[in-house]
Amino acid sequence: MASEAPLRNWQDLVTAKRHECEQKIPQDWFLSADQLALAQETPRLLDIGIPRQSGLLSEVELDLTENYTASQLLVKLTSGQVSSLAVTTAFSKRAAIAQQVVSCLTETFFPQALERAKYLDEYLQREGKPIGPLHGLPISMKDTFCVEGVQSTIGYVAFLKNEPAKTNSALVKMLLQLGAVLYVKTNIPQTMMTADSENNIFGRTLNPHKTTLTAGGSSGGEGALVAFRGSILGVGTDIAGSIRIPALCCGVYGFKPTANRIPFGGQVSGAEEGIPTLVPTAGPLAHSIADLKLLMRSVVADGQAWKYDSAAVAVPWQTTPSGIDVSGSLTIGVLAEDEHFPLHPPVKRALERAVEALKRRGHRIVRIGADDEAQSVAYASCVAFQYFTYGPHKDLLAASGEPAVTSVAKAVGPMSSGPYPVQQGLGPFETIQALHVARQRIHDIWRRTWVDQKLDVILAPGAQNTAVGHDTYGWPPYTVIWNMLDYPVCIIPFGKASKELDPEPMTTGDNAQPDYHADEVDGAPCAIQIITPRFQDEKCLWAADVIDRVLAVYEKE
Amino acid sequence: MASEAPLRNWQDLVTAKRHECEQKIPQDWFLSADQLALAQETPRLLDIGIPRQSGLLSEVELDLTENYTASQLLVKLTSGQVSSLAVTTAFSKRAAIAQQVVSCLTETFFPQALERAKYLDEYLQREGKPIGPLHGLPISMKDTFCVEGVQSTIGYVAFLKNEPAKTNSALVKMLLQLGAVLYVKTNIPQTMMTADSENNIFGRTLNPHKTTLTAGGSSGGEGALVAFRGSILGVGTDIAGSIRIPALCCGVYGFKPTANRIPFGGQVSGAEEGIPTLVPTAGPLAHSIADLKLLMRSVVADGQAWKYDSAAVAVPWQTTPSGIDVSGSLTIGVLAEDEHFPLHPPVKRALERAVEALKRRGHRIVRIGADDEAQSVAYASCVAFQYFTYGPHKDLLAASGEPAVTSVAKAVGPMSSGPYPVQQGLGPFETIQALHVARQRIHDIWRRTWVDQKLDVILAPGAQNTAVGHDTYGWPPYTVIWNMLDYPVCIIPFGKASKELDPEPMTTGDNAQPDYHADEVDGAPCAIQIITPRFQDEKCLWAADVIDRVLAVYEKE
Repeated sequence: MASEAPLRNWQDLVTAKRHECEQKIPQDWFLSADQLALAQETPRLLDIGIPRQSGLLSEVELDLTENYTASQLLVKLTSGQVSSLAVTTAFSKRAAIAQQVVSCLTETFFPQALERAKYLDEYLQREGKPIGPLHGLPISMKDTFCVEGVQSTIGYVAFLKNEPAKTNSALVKMLLQLGAVLYVKTNIPQTMMTADSENNIFGRTLNPHKTTLTAGGSSGGEGALVAFRGSILGVGTDIAGSIRIPALCCGVYGFKPTANRIPFGGQVSGAEEGIPTLVPTAGPLAHSIADLKLLMRSVVADGQAWKYDSAAVAVPWQTTPSGIDVSGSLTIGVLAEDEHFPLHPPVKRALERAVEALKRRGHRIVRIGADDEAQSVAYASCVAFQYFTYGPHKDLLAASGEPAVTSVAKAVGPMSSGPYPVQQGLGPFETIQALHVARQRIHDIWRRTWVDQKLDVILAPGAQNTAVGHDTYGWPPYTVIWNMLDYPVCIIPFGKASKELDPEPMTTGDNAQPDYHADEVDGAPCAIQIITPRFQDEKCLWAADVIDRVLAVYEKE
Repeated sequence: MASEAPLRNWQDLVTAKRHECEQKIPQDWFLSADQLALAQETPRLLDIGIPRQSGLLSEVELDLTENYTASQLLVKLTSGQVSSLAVTTAFSKRAAIAQQVVSCLTETFFPQALERAKYLDEYLQREGKPIGPLHGLPISMKDTFCVEGVQSTIGYVAFLKNEPAKTNSALVKMLLQLGAVLYVKTNIPQTMMTADSENNIFGRTLNPHKTTLTAGGSSGGEGALVAFRGSILGVGTDIAGSIRIPALCCGVYGFKPTANRIPFGGQVSGAEEGIPTLVPTAGPLAHSIADLKLLMRSVVADGQAWKYDSAAVAVPWQTTPSGIDVSGSLTIGVLAEDEHFPLHPPVKRALERAVEALKRRGHRIVRIGADDEAQSVAYASCVAFQYFTYGPHKDLLAASGEPAVTSVAKAVGPMSSGPYPVQQGLGPFETIQALHVARQRIHDIWRRTWVDQKLDVILAPGAQNTAVGHDTYGWPPYTVIWNMLDYPVCIIPFGKASKELDPEPMTTGDNAQPDYHADEVDGAPCAIQIITPRFQDEKCLWAADVIDRVLAVYEKE
């Protein structure tokens, strides 16, 4: 009788799902027990070269996954120099290996991907031309995106009962039309509102730079997979830092565009719709600015995304951004450290080294104070937090009985920087109105700073900290402020935390935010943010490219 | 004692304001008693040529105000062929005359305008080049815009106590930087939510085509002033049809852009901020498509409006719109008549004549049904109405004790087309959410129509009716649907109502919407709307230009 009982409790549902996911990885793509053990006992995974050690990838496959940008691979793919089947196989294998050591995937659909790659190879051969600008390129996507025939649980046990998606998300439709090959979806945090990509179904994503550190979130699976080079180009989403946090934690490039330049529609969400809040945005994670541009340029193109998602803006991509100085000379505002959110020493060092490098190359540096409290990172963070916590929320955990994971249970907020910006206990309309007025004020102050200081971009830390120990990341004030303003932002990895250079510990004096422990984060990637005003995505990436080159030269000097 | 009592009741405040306004018009710009009497007894004002009859304008001034587009005037202005002082004087005089016969103005600031014109003339002479692309051109603006030193009462007695504006609205700043000369602000309805531009301070704006008819609203003063050629280029705002209704009533061109392409910020409003609703937009009224384009191209330019208004989008103007067929061949969706809002015979005739003209020139015509109720004009109108009526509203009438004007007292709504789309009595969040979901559905259905039918533009009636008798215009379903969708829309005047061609009366069977009376509207302008999806403003005006030329040729055949 017991054997006939349906799977009822959440653990049974999870066990079944995990088994199913494991079955989908080809048997000969599994690491040996020895290799797994080695991976488990070596925090700095990237240093030990598991893909090569495993023997699962050929030399060609190692080369394809390690030595090119997506843009370079596309040259090979569209010229027929390499087949999509070869490239897709290589990245599929490498993603399967990544999954075994850092748990970065949710769904895999390798057979369908290889089928499609074959189809595209035949197309190229038959037609003599690529099917689109992303012809044959494997692209990974956050679990929130729907791919026909693939489930989208976003880590909620309650969603395990859902059927596989019957339609593609808007962006998925576009990527397929552009010629991409989709092969995996990637892991996220329970609720998607923490920086630790852990949930009860797919477990915890580890940081391949150092598995004792968080991979960030919510697009943490993307960050880890791209860092492991199990993906050459991934897509995440960002409402408080969810593209940028994994990028900075995992040492890859990330771009949060202005909302709705990349179609966001048709994803699975656990949030209520229609409540006025910040607008989430989809964007790329990659190994270079060139590849961030590739994704943006290919999808935005001449502004056809509205045909797939009615919220997407019909605004073409500007090949030459307006308002740029073609000499490449930039006026760069450097965001001040917020007293409520002091920077960890490696973050501060990376920022000041970037300033030094840029100064040396003749760029104009302007230090931006926050004389007005409303311009501060802390205040913007508090307004954002009140937006997020305001109004009804679905309880999708109660629906299945699964418990909150640690980072969710901690429910951190920006409590160190004072009371709620909008008085509590007001009616719903008065609260929304007061929040909008508060946000409008922030917008206006920032606008005046851009204009008065004649800024091209703002240079800012990506966070108070680098990747930190699991479940300690805290609230993301340095990223969420730019969501408040809907500004496009690029993350550029730059240097690494070093216990030799910054041996002294630092406490933030804050229950929610992480302290600095030199040993803990030694070797973690550092990063900077490059920011432009709303809709100046083209200029943001153009300037990020200029800055990235300056930093690369500086590192070599 | 009585003579020392302060002005307390609303009538006294109004009398004082009206006296002040009258004093600001130069004595020698007043019409004679005979001319005024003639104007009062002649409904078809434009036919009797008051400006010429009055003798107040020289031949040159008549020529400048009557025979050129703004674009043509700019050629003369920037080449020094004509002075800004001459052009500004001519339009100021003509505006002053318009005010005396159709009450289209609120504030005048002729001395300041003439000062500025002189300054610009001197600048051109001194520097040998124009100060900007609108050098020396007089532009009129709706009363909601703030001009430094000028009051913005928007027709509320309660606002008569307000000081003159201390700063310019964002758009005012830009227009001045571009070289424009501002000289008058124009009349609006009390509350700005009716199509009859009447309020207790500035009275009722009359339609210069026929003074027994409404000039439309809420930018009714603009519509009347432009039609009278007291302005060559005016700026209105539109949240339900407030640019387009005056344009179609007064037989001029009007363009409602996508929200925030023209900066909207810094205007005076009587509405609560921050309540989720439709987004208002600013845009031009003019005598030609070329002049609508002139305003858009000059202000949007390379996307600097964000520097003046943080809500404005940094999206450059596309000189060659993307997604156009350079052969000029269009696929035109023709909006079906809504059964709840049947078209008056002259409106139907104008629409079908336009279709006939376009067919004859080889454009592809697609009739768009509304198989899905959510695609209907009536349903969109109901959703919009529920947005507008939902949430708290300020009572700015009670503040001064002034009564509601007739059109406001009628408080019409789209009651003929069924119950509220969202059930009443839900909590605030549930209601907002349900309204957003309803709107999203409308968006998606329309998106599919554009894509499936491969439409370039939609051709639609501007309203059920032409300009009708005062206080009978009703609810504007055929305009508000495009605000719901935030689609750019161009009004093209086309033909006139004729009691000979359409002698039969028609009843709408509706308490709110006007019936057709052939005698009443005989001679009223007719118009069509040309619509594109959001952010395709460039394509909308490009297609409107193509269509306008086709219609002009057709009228001559």
